[in-house]
Amino acid sequence: MVHRAVCPGSFDPITMGHVDIFRRAAQQFDEMVVLVTGNPNKPSGLFSISERVELAEKAVADLPNVTVDWWGGLLVDYTTKHDIGVIVKGLRSALDYEYEVPMAQMNRSLSGVDTMFFMTNPKYGHVSSTLCKEVIKYGGDIHDVLPPDVEEAIQKKLSG
Amino acid sequence: MVHRAVCPGSFDPITMGHVDIFRRAAQQFDEMVVLVTGNPNKPSGLFSISERVELAEKAVADLPNVTVDWWGGLLVDYTTKHDIGVIVKGLRSALDYEYEVPMAQMNRSLSGVDTMFFMTNPKYGHVSSTLCKEVIKYGGDIHDVLPPDVEEAIQKKLSG
Amino acid sequence: MVHRAVCPGSFDPITMGHVDIFRRAAQQFDEMVVLVTGNPNKPSGLFSISERVELAEKAVADLPNVTVDWWGGLLVDYTTKHDIGVIVKGLRSALDYEYEVPMAQMNRSLSGVDTMFFMTNPKYGHVSSTLCKEVIKYGGDIHDVLPPDVEEAIQKKLSG
Amino acid sequence: MVHRAVCPGSFDPITMGHVDIFRRAAQQFDEMVVLVTGNPNKPSGLFSISERVELAEKAVADLPNVTVDWWGGLLVDYTTKHDIGVIVKGLRSALDYEYEVPMAQMNRSLSGVDTMFFMTNPKYGHVSSTLCKEVIKYGGDIHDVLPPDVEEAIQKKLSG
Amino acid sequence: MVHRAVCPGSFDPITMGHVDIFRRAAQQFDEMVVLVTGNPNKPSGLFSISERVELAEKAVADLPNVTVDWWGGLLVDYTTKHDIGVIVKGLRSALDYEYEVPMAQMNRSLSGVDTMFFMTNPKYGHVSSTLCKEVIKYGGDIHDVLPPDVEEAIQKKLSG
Amino acid sequence: MVHRAVCPGSFDPITMGHVDIFRRAAQQFDEMVVLVTGNPNKPSGLFSISERVELAEKAVADLPNVTVDWWGGLLVDYTTKHDIGVIVKGLRSALDYEYEVPMAQMNRSLSGVDTMFFMTNPKYGHVSSTLCKEVIKYGGDIHDVLPPDVEEAIQKKLSG
Repeated sequence: MVHRAVCPGSFDPITMGHVDIFRRAAQQFDEMVVLVTGNPNKPSGLFSISERVELAEKAVADLPNVTVDWWGGLLVDYTTKHDIGVIVKGLRSALDYEYEVPMAQMNRSLSGVDTMFFMTNPKYGHVSSTLCKEVIKYGGDIHDVLPPDVEEAIQKKLSG
Repeated sequence: MVHRAVCPGSFDPITMGHVDIFRRAAQQFDEMVVLVTGNPNKPSGLFSISERVELAEKAVADLPNVTVDWWGGLLVDYTTKHDIGVIVKGLRSALDYEYEVPMAQMNRSLSGVDTMFFMTNPKYGHVSSTLCKEVIKYGGDIHDVLPPDVEEAIQKKLSG
Repeated sequence: MVHRAVCPGSFDPITMGHVDIFRRAAQQFDEMVVLVTGNPNKPSGLFSISERVELAEKAVADLPNVTVDWWGGLLVDYTTKHDIGVIVKGLRSALDYEYEVPMAQMNRSLSGVDTMFFMTNPKYGHVSSTLCKEVIKYGGDIHDVLPPDVEEAIQKKLSG
Repeated sequence: MVHRAVCPGSFDPITMGHVDIFRRAAQQFDEMVVLVTGNPNKPSGLFSISERVELAEKAVADLPNVTVDWWGGLLVDYTTKHDIGVIVKGLRSALDYEYEVPMAQMNRSLSGVDTMFFMTNPKYGHVSSTLCKEVIKYGGDIHDVLPPDVEEAIQKKLSG
Repeated sequence: MVHRAVCPGSFDPITMGHVDIFRRAAQQFDEMVVLVTGNPNKPSGLFSISERVELAEKAVADLPNVTVDWWGGLLVDYTTKHDIGVIVKGLRSALDYEYEVPMAQMNRSLSGVDTMFFMTNPKYGHVSSTLCKEVIKYGGDIHDVLPPDVEEAIQKKLSG
Repeated sequence: MVHRAVCPGSFDPITMGHVDIFRRAAQQFDEMVVLVTGNPNKPSGLFSISERVELAEKAVADLPNVTVDWWGGLLVDYTTKHDIGVIVKGLRSALDYEYEVPMAQMNRSLSGVDTMFFMTNPKYGHVSSTLCKEVIKYGGDIHDVLPPDVEEAIQKKLSG
């Protein structure tokens, strides 16, 4: 039996905190999909859906069993369609846990798909896409918590 | 002495999680008011105040000591005016507790009215008006966590 | 219909934090029982069950609809036997909430009895029987968070 | 590549909350070990290590890729020795999360083994071995949250 | 060596909860700056940056080692420029802790500046600028949790 | 004015998590005392009070404004006697916060002494004296989270 997992998120943009979770999840499952969620027809956030996919693809290029995709619908429709058994999420804190629990329970009640959690690597515990964009906007240097190209991509977007 | 309680909320719209709390609170007090809070002159959310009241009334029709009302002002002015001794709220998680505590303390300091909490029935722990609307928007079926008519009412609104 | 509530606890000994909850609960229900839980045949803690009952009785003497009792068995057997509809507990923090939730859910699954929570008065948020005994043991003065007689009773026990 | 997981715990005794996690974990990995941890030479708790193993084995008998074992040493020595890539734990609450995080981080720093978490099924959110033993001791009936034979085994032990 | 601290915040407007923290922090450090953060060219909130500064200055006028300033850039650039060794924040709850931790860690990784936390005085645990504005908007009286002039200033703004 | 702080704890034994807090606190205050709390006449734990003091002294030997002391009484009696204005504690998690808050509030009500918190360095977030002793007992290597000499001291004690 092939065990497939999906890591969904807005990834606007991807950070090293995300990549760390992908890398660890890729070791526990046969195949894993990084899934950028959002509606390409209703742009929101800093990067477009396709730009987010592209940045994610570069960041996981060295992980042979990981692919990147996007989805604009209900997450459980994607997992059912692609025969994915488990959703994987990273938890930075008990607060993240509280936010994720209702979604995990809702997804399980909708389609039976389960959710598993990794604890975020402590060295990335303070890293979120939102905080990274805020810091770069004011000129802070945080390239060590972003994949190559991402800091520059944010700078271009913000100045463009 | 008559013990009166009020369950305030935006109820946009009412869910089975809310109804479960109303039903349990109705057993502990002589009279209970489900209070839709919001300003009818400044519409926000999916349903109008009167639509929310109507859906709530249908959902508690079998509870003889429960009535539904709405209020656009300070909650403590309503409780003082109607001689209500306690505000009742449901808690789904420790996170809900953290959000409710300052409001409970503020209300008590403003008028002396107290607040009591029920733990949400675990089978509705994942249910919120917001998450239900999101799921229905993308075609998910969650009629088991909504009172009769509510799923259909959401679908009509979203497609209308 | 008479609405009865019970406030169970070890109360070894009673503090002003407990009394504040009793006073507030006494306003919301027709009758309320302060229930000292523990086995008189297996002494543990600082005070005996009957001493705890006596200190609690003095502390609630001015509350006409409050009585004090003790119980060595399953809490739900007491509530069923005395036709009590709700267990009342005080919450000092989200941590208390986490500890109380499983017991509330267990009690509801055992007999249908519900549990309601009050937020502890912030001025007693730091008060627990354990911490009070510890402070008095080392000579600290905390008579303002203990009912009359209780500080002296602790001092006698500790030195006796 | 074969993906192996381990679910460690004291399991004194096993509950339906545990079994629910085992069942779900068994679907995500090729092989899974339920690992009773404890020192058979220093008895503690209600059941001996071998009794706990026996009760667990009966409870997972219908899960073909699940085995039961015990271990008295460092968990990471077991996972290294048996080429197990991930430790699986259930989380009932944010409080559980807080307790598990340091152990997960410690295990990862000791041997590189990762930890994944499942959210406990809400209908077993109130179930712990400790609370079950306490309830049965006082005559409560909780056979619906225990595997067949376990309630009776607890009753025998407590009366023996 | 001179120990300098900074208390940053939007302070829209300042409350007695803030002032209580400033007063306590002023006792532990040689010099302390209350720093209103925000961009004067992109107005948001109820009061302008200069109005917030003015209200804060009045509220701390009796604290000789406290000054008020504003900053529109990265907080760590301000602390580096003014040789400030520590950021001071008040925590009202475990929830506040969860929100502050990533920012504290980010600031430390950006410039080495550390963050220290005070527990909010419990009598102001329910006080936030947002809740105060909401209550006053609906006619509630909360002058006891606001510095002199602030309640009136909010009323003028809301009616103006 | 001289600003003095105290870091109290059982320190049985000291870890790098503690030392990290001492080092950071030493930068914010003029003088700092590491205070081993416990009663030398009622031995408990692994190390005696004087052994804990000795290990702590070695670990902070390079911090010129830090001294180590011990105290068997009420903490506030020590701070009053030595004119210490603030207690400093490290927080590893929101759970630590919940445990520290009542003690901070109690100490402030007893003598006016305040408490300030540092966030634990994430790389030591999993480190506690208890967990370290447990790991070493079973042969795990954790010298990187313990000051020089401490791992060996634990091994000697456990085998002695």
